[in-house]
Amino acid sequence: MTLIYKAPLRDMRFVMDEWLDAAAWWREVPDWQDLDSPTAQQVLEEAARFVEERIAPLNASADLEGCHFEAGTVTTPAGFRESYAEFVAAGWPTLSLDPEHGGQGLPQLLDVALQEMLAGANHAWLMSPGLTHGATACLQTYGSERVKRELLPKVASGEWLSTMCLTEPQAGSDVGLIRSRATEAPGTDGYFIDGSKIFISGGAHDLTENIVHLVLARLPDAPPGTKGLSLFVVPEWLDGSDAGRSRNGVYCEGIEKKMGLKGSPTCTMRFERAFGWLVGEPHRGLTCLFVMMNAARLQVAMQGLGHAQSAWQRAHAYAQERRQMRALSVPPGATVAPGQTSPIAFHPAMRRILMELRAVAEGERAIGYWTAHWLDIAARHADAAERENAAQLASLLTPIVKAFFTANGFAAASNALQVFGGYGYIHEYGIEQTLRDSRVSMLYEGTNEIQAIDLLVRKVLPDGARALDLLLRHMRAEAGLCRESDPLVRCAGVKLDELAQTVERTTQALKARQAQDPETAYRVADDYLAMLGWMLLAFAWARTLRIATPQRDTDAFYAEKQETGRFFFDYPLAAFAYRRSLVEAGCEAALPFV
Amino acid sequence: MTLIYKAPLRDMRFVMDEWLDAAAWWREVPDWQDLDSPTAQQVLEEAARFVEERIAPLNASADLEGCHFEAGTVTTPAGFRESYAEFVAAGWPTLSLDPEHGGQGLPQLLDVALQEMLAGANHAWLMSPGLTHGATACLQTYGSERVKRELLPKVASGEWLSTMCLTEPQAGSDVGLIRSRATEAPGTDGYFIDGSKIFISGGAHDLTENIVHLVLARLPDAPPGTKGLSLFVVPEWLDGSDAGRSRNGVYCEGIEKKMGLKGSPTCTMRFERAFGWLVGEPHRGLTCLFVMMNAARLQVAMQGLGHAQSAWQRAHAYAQERRQMRALSVPPGATVAPGQTSPIAFHPAMRRILMELRAVAEGERAIGYWTAHWLDIAARHADAAERENAAQLASLLTPIVKAFFTANGFAAASNALQVFGGYGYIHEYGIEQTLRDSRVSMLYEGTNEIQAIDLLVRKVLPDGARALDLLLRHMRAEAGLCRESDPLVRCAGVKLDELAQTVERTTQALKARQAQDPETAYRVADDYLAMLGWMLLAFAWARTLRIATPQRDTDAFYAEKQETGRFFFDYPLAAFAYRRSLVEAGCEAALPFV
Repeated sequence: MTLIYKAPLRDMRFVMDEWLDAAAWWREVPDWQDLDSPTAQQVLEEAARFVEERIAPLNASADLEGCHFEAGTVTTPAGFRESYAEFVAAGWPTLSLDPEHGGQGLPQLLDVALQEMLAGANHAWLMSPGLTHGATACLQTYGSERVKRELLPKVASGEWLSTMCLTEPQAGSDVGLIRSRATEAPGTDGYFIDGSKIFISGGAHDLTENIVHLVLARLPDAPPGTKGLSLFVVPEWLDGSDAGRSRNGVYCEGIEKKMGLKGSPTCTMRFERAFGWLVGEPHRGLTCLFVMMNAARLQVAMQGLGHAQSAWQRAHAYAQERRQMRALSVPPGATVAPGQTSPIAFHPAMRRILMELRAVAEGERAIGYWTAHWLDIAARHADAAERENAAQLASLLTPIVKAFFTANGFAAASNALQVFGGYGYIHEYGIEQTLRDSRVSMLYEGTNEIQAIDLLVRKVLPDGARALDLLLRHMRAEAGLCRESDPLVRCAGVKLDELAQTVERTTQALKARQAQDPETAYRVADDYLAMLGWMLLAFAWARTLRIATPQRDTDAFYAEKQETGRFFFDYPLAAFAYRRSLVEAGCEAALPFV
Repeated sequence: MTLIYKAPLRDMRFVMDEWLDAAAWWREVPDWQDLDSPTAQQVLEEAARFVEERIAPLNASADLEGCHFEAGTVTTPAGFRESYAEFVAAGWPTLSLDPEHGGQGLPQLLDVALQEMLAGANHAWLMSPGLTHGATACLQTYGSERVKRELLPKVASGEWLSTMCLTEPQAGSDVGLIRSRATEAPGTDGYFIDGSKIFISGGAHDLTENIVHLVLARLPDAPPGTKGLSLFVVPEWLDGSDAGRSRNGVYCEGIEKKMGLKGSPTCTMRFERAFGWLVGEPHRGLTCLFVMMNAARLQVAMQGLGHAQSAWQRAHAYAQERRQMRALSVPPGATVAPGQTSPIAFHPAMRRILMELRAVAEGERAIGYWTAHWLDIAARHADAAERENAAQLASLLTPIVKAFFTANGFAAASNALQVFGGYGYIHEYGIEQTLRDSRVSMLYEGTNEIQAIDLLVRKVLPDGARALDLLLRHMRAEAGLCRESDPLVRCAGVKLDELAQTVERTTQALKARQAQDPETAYRVADDYLAMLGWMLLAFAWARTLRIATPQRDTDAFYAEKQETGRFFFDYPLAAFAYRRSLVEAGCEAALPFV
């Protein structure tokens, strides 16, 4: 039994139309006046068709086939080259790109939904176009006129793919240790780059005729550490106006043998007198990359959501088919003849796993899209103060969704695998690949531990940081609305209010403790992030309950939403108190060295 | 950097000599009067040498090479055949076998320690001899005289390997659905077996010249369900006294492509007029297998422990080597020069993971060996009532350690992988293999959900079940001893007492609730099992603290034990309250159907 991914269009529509009411806000943006829900849904339906028909079927075969490296050249799995060409031809890379750069100018929200689909269908495939938006934004903002003229259009359209070259063997989480060097290329407007980079996704491949590398390196006068890093754009092929294309000094030296993501080549790259142009100011390379890294982190969060969705779909389908033993009870309307076995979906241990898979995936969809929605507001709102608030919220939410969604995506894969029993361990059922592929998202684009430190130490604790207040205000506003509704919704509102209060109090206590013991924040950051993650899911489900409950008798979709929301508050939310108890432990007890 | 497994001999000695004081009890058994701690340690040192030098180095290569299937024949990875022959020649399979059957008659405790080493060093390799003890016990107890004469000696010595053939495509957790048939073979003392079996570990291989299959099948007059299953022993080769060896009707039809455990062939088997002998009485096949399955479940628990130990070793070694960023604090005595980076082992997020890996692995070692110790008492105590109590305790502990240790082993692998950052995802660092290999133990020998139901529904809730009382009595006795010690130990004792009380109260409430709603136990079983698991680790660490604290100034080993024990009560034990809150949720809230 192999389940092919189905995009959750009905739930996407629910989140956009009802949970976010995105169209109401689109009407306030001049460019989006004509964008209504049916148009947006049509875009998503087309995306779903492409992803389901062209991308999802390549997932298992690409895992088996992997990428091949020979003499500096990388071959991607069968079907990747053709389907990527179709993806570009259909204009998917430019969905949210500004029309003045040749894009369709749609909200990032739609792009994020597309990313969720691609991740759920075929994570390895998504890796190739994964950096297109980030590289486009980076070159748009910081590229020279020449770079914008010669490179940007092909990067933006997806005709050329991009990479982000940061990591070196000695420099992973600590990019300040980067050693690659850049020296002026005499008589030109550029530089020569020399150095070695590892873990470069798509460093070499056969999908596009050129690859544009964004490389961190040090200029000769660079100060040590992160303040001496400059960003360079280094195309694999240079376009000499007279002499035609010439090969730049960029070499792939090998690809990694990885746990998963086998369809995506992870390359070791050598830059040897590689010609490139400076992007942004000297020594300000990290600033230039921020725009790219934030987009990448939200996309990685969508990978977590995509895997959670895929895990839920696979486990749900299997649990309906597979019959073992007789369950004590059956759903209303179902019958199991005497002496017959039940679908395992009827057994309580399986229902518990399945409901949790569903509650997490659907709750995360609301929160992930909410984050993208704030990015749209930050980019497009008419009012500067609104833009600033939205940007702060998005910046606070980004590390949370990156770490929380990816950890949940991996946990979902493992829990779903358990539903399959022994079959879960076998390649042909697909779920073991989900588990292997999903694990990487907890590591790259900043490990989840780095995200937690970014959240707590840089965005919550500093004096004057107000993003958390903004966030809690949204929680309380929703709680207030819920309290005016029927008893089930009211309970959710009361609970959400309590959670917001707990987060506020815990944060205050943490600040006080941090003043005495500066290691406190580093001890508790992971649990603090998870606490906020669970609060956000409670927010997602409180609002969902408020919307769904009055409609529960009109459509099974809302009745199921109501049941799932109730389940969320009964069971999975217990993790909030657990994480809080660990934050408190970390405020009290020092950690030994090992 | 590839870390080769090192057996934790110092900690094994601590558990056996101080935590269990096993030698004191050995002196009470006539056969073990001469067995003292130095002798036992010598056995473990020899085992460690063999495992470290011959088995561990084959782990990564076997994963890459895998097993090969061609025309019904399975080839195991390079080195397996030779090392297995050495294993047999050195007498390791017969370590705890009765001397009257040619064994060395040592306690099962030592065997369990050997299993832990093999699992930590090379789980796939361990799969081959994994069923030798169970098959031996089964044939000893239930085999006919002929079977005991012709098959048992070679099974017991490991000269022939064994399999357990239960699962069929439609019959996994629900063995009652087994369809394989057995009919009398006219003019012989045996039967013909026909049917298909899947997921048979070592169903075919090149390690031994014969393979002895234990097969569940139905006799013609069998009632439906589990009460109609009979057990047969079916050798791959039959020893015709006149005509020499002849091939039996047992065929391997293929091997599975799995997530991990690639060095162990998982076979699809076809039995076609395969000749075999009945083992035990007709229709009582499951009873005959129980002795085998219990041994197998404890061994699977040891796999969880082995992986936890291996994960801890790997992460610890890597965290000492890898330097990134500057930590806020350094261990006493260590210095980091200004401007230098620290080993990542100094960073709080890593210390938290590393300490938890250590606390879980070492705590589990005490509890796992304690379980084996009860099995020894159940087998050898002079007093029948003591034997009965010990058997009940071991029977209660077996599903707990199987499910709890294997879930923790997988979690440990994933947490340890996180310490490696991006390198964790790469094959050559070894930890991703630990993650893949460890996952299977949550599935086989009864999924962890089946273990939880076995524990709660069969061993705790029934009227008159007294095993839990016995267990809690041990917790309270330890708590009492701790309360007579210094403040840190006293706190641990108080906490352990509270945990025992909570378990008792939760169990009572659950019984009451179960009387009204028979689905309750099935909803909460997994969390209930985990609650007991965390209580047992608290027991392990309370006793460890009691032993280590007075000696902390004499030896760094005890000082580290004390720090780890304190950490356990500060941090990981928070999971107990979390699981308890989920048990309570399950007592209150019904689960929807999905």
